[in-house]
Amino acid sequence: MVGAGQLARMTCQAAISLGIGFRVLADSAGDSAAQVCAGTVVGDYTSLPDLRAFAGQCDVITFDHEHVPGQHLAALERSPAAVHPGAASLRFTQDKLAMRERLGALGVRCPRYVPVSEGAETESFAAEVGWPVVLKAVRGGYDGRGVWVCGTPATAAGVLAHGVAVIAEEHIAFSRELAALVARSPHGQAAAYPVVQTVQRDGVCHEVLAPAPGLDAGRAKQAQRIALQLAASLGVTGLLAVELFDTPGGLLVNELAMRPHNSGHWTIEGAATSQFEQHLRAVLDLPLGDPRAVAPCVVMANVFGSGDEDVYGRYAHVMAADPGVKVHLYGKAARPGRKIGHVTVPGNEVGDLRARAARAAAYLGSGKE
Amino acid sequence: MVGAGQLARMTCQAAISLGIGFRVLADSAGDSAAQVCAGTVVGDYTSLPDLRAFAGQCDVITFDHEHVPGQHLAALERSPAAVHPGAASLRFTQDKLAMRERLGALGVRCPRYVPVSEGAETESFAAEVGWPVVLKAVRGGYDGRGVWVCGTPATAAGVLAHGVAVIAEEHIAFSRELAALVARSPHGQAAAYPVVQTVQRDGVCHEVLAPAPGLDAGRAKQAQRIALQLAASLGVTGLLAVELFDTPGGLLVNELAMRPHNSGHWTIEGAATSQFEQHLRAVLDLPLGDPRAVAPCVVMANVFGSGDEDVYGRYAHVMAADPGVKVHLYGKAARPGRKIGHVTVPGNEVGDLRARAARAAAYLGSGKE
Repeated sequence: MVGAGQLARMTCQAAISLGIGFRVLADSAGDSAAQVCAGTVVGDYTSLPDLRAFAGQCDVITFDHEHVPGQHLAALERSPAAVHPGAASLRFTQDKLAMRERLGALGVRCPRYVPVSEGAETESFAAEVGWPVVLKAVRGGYDGRGVWVCGTPATAAGVLAHGVAVIAEEHIAFSRELAALVARSPHGQAAAYPVVQTVQRDGVCHEVLAPAPGLDAGRAKQAQRIALQLAASLGVTGLLAVELFDTPGGLLVNELAMRPHNSGHWTIEGAATSQFEQHLRAVLDLPLGDPRAVAPCVVMANVFGSGDEDVYGRYAHVMAADPGVKVHLYGKAARPGRKIGHVTVPGNEVGDLRARAARAAAYLGSGKE
Repeated sequence: MVGAGQLARMTCQAAISLGIGFRVLADSAGDSAAQVCAGTVVGDYTSLPDLRAFAGQCDVITFDHEHVPGQHLAALERSPAAVHPGAASLRFTQDKLAMRERLGALGVRCPRYVPVSEGAETESFAAEVGWPVVLKAVRGGYDGRGVWVCGTPATAAGVLAHGVAVIAEEHIAFSRELAALVARSPHGQAAAYPVVQTVQRDGVCHEVLAPAPGLDAGRAKQAQRIALQLAASLGVTGLLAVELFDTPGGLLVNELAMRPHNSGHWTIEGAATSQFEQHLRAVLDLPLGDPRAVAPCVVMANVFGSGDEDVYGRYAHVMAADPGVKVHLYGKAARPGRKIGHVTVPGNEVGDLRARAARAAAYLGSGKE
């Protein structure tokens, strides 16, 4: 796995059960996955020689993030190691304009968009869709970075002044956000997880509710169908997470990711097969595992750093207060606002589970409830 | 953790979630846990300098097996690292005569026994309890090794000729074997898992049924009480597994282990807190996790080597045949009869789960159903 963040760390755990030799290409030995993975190689994912040397030790290459340059992905595909997902698929997670164009061609509903490079173009688009307008960096954004909700022409002009390639999208007045996670293997088998609701603040996921509470069965099935269709049409191997806007007028696709995804962390305890095991099974071209939930309801809440590093000192309180909370920490310095872990609470009633997960996550992060 | 077998390997996975720095003292870099643990130290657990050097890198020392010499355990207890369980407790897993004497003093029912060193003593004991008689090595036995069921004086004499210290025990005509697993922390908190049935062949565990099917609630509670009483009386910190004979006349204690135990592997998927996480929480003096089952029924079956190393080549069949089977392989060479992994199947009906688990385990081990 190229990249050694928390996704690689949790994939490493799944690889141990399957007895699979698992290596990570880490920026440094202190990376989240590098701390725990016996097969850590330190190297630069933007360097083709580093990538090639790493690939030479592996049968299959997969990814913790979407930042490996496209031409390097193409070069890796000419090495003996299999690359999953491949460069042609990953392109649609690396280039938001290409993604929007392709989804449009496939007839998948998305927010209206237009590539913009100057204020006049944004204002002309806003005249059509109304303010605010969402500007998104075509490349390199994640976790709310590279996304700007602009209420005025002046704000939009300020973003455009950065000089990065952006697209303007209509601001969707959604009822809520959903995520549909599917896996697809090279031999074409696919499996869909229950559709979840994600609760975001400032573009960052805070909570995931599985399954999405009260979601109409038809709409849930439609979300799964969109994800399965996209996985097949884009030739995805491994996981595909599709972030969706749920609106009174229907579902719109917001973003794609082709790797384990924050919206799927609940599957570690909450599904028969965790997303991390499923990703490994898919990229290794093994039959996929059962994606069904094993509890009526599961809530995941992210733990954010507060600058106070004494997270472990707060274990006693969190664990004593709620013996049913499952804690996952990523070994990351607790910089304010940084995702340093998550908690999962499986159970029966979503309101109760949300309260418990939120309390544990807040206390772990900051010592406050 | 001293020792790097599969118990350490699975404890390593649990440590990753908790963000705990986890090291193993391994005999060699190829050991089951050493293959996957970033904190592997190679050394000899019978060497006090090696143990001391390892302990110098740790806050808490715990164990994958009970083979560290008692005097070394006592020496480690004078080092700054906490040792859990301690030497005084571990003695009762290292010396079966001391264990039987102590349990007798505590009023815990066990098979009748007597230390024997010659044939005449065995025959005189057999005259009282009848043949067959079970001879057990006082030290060093595990997984059926060091246990001999002797049907005749000649067989018993053959065992005694080895010259190892043994005790003779009456052969119990049990209805079945049970295991009660509890955790106890240094501050005295305890938690009991549901009582399971273990299915042994030639003294080796093949299957675990959780909870023990049809076990009377009173007897299940009694088994948990025995384990909790022993954990407290023996000062156990960490896990205590108590193997019991279920007989028409009541429960008898067979063996003790103070570590994660084969009878608890089902808890990885089947309980809110796995035995591996629970052991870590206990030895770190953290509040214990919820030990309750998360499925009505869970069956675990061990995978045994057949001499055919191509276990991974059989994944496709096993995974395609049953997407709900959870596979755990230990990275061990598939020597005939060796435990190289296990499978777990959670569900509703024990007969169905046993058939599925047995089929998957047999096929993984040997390519035959």
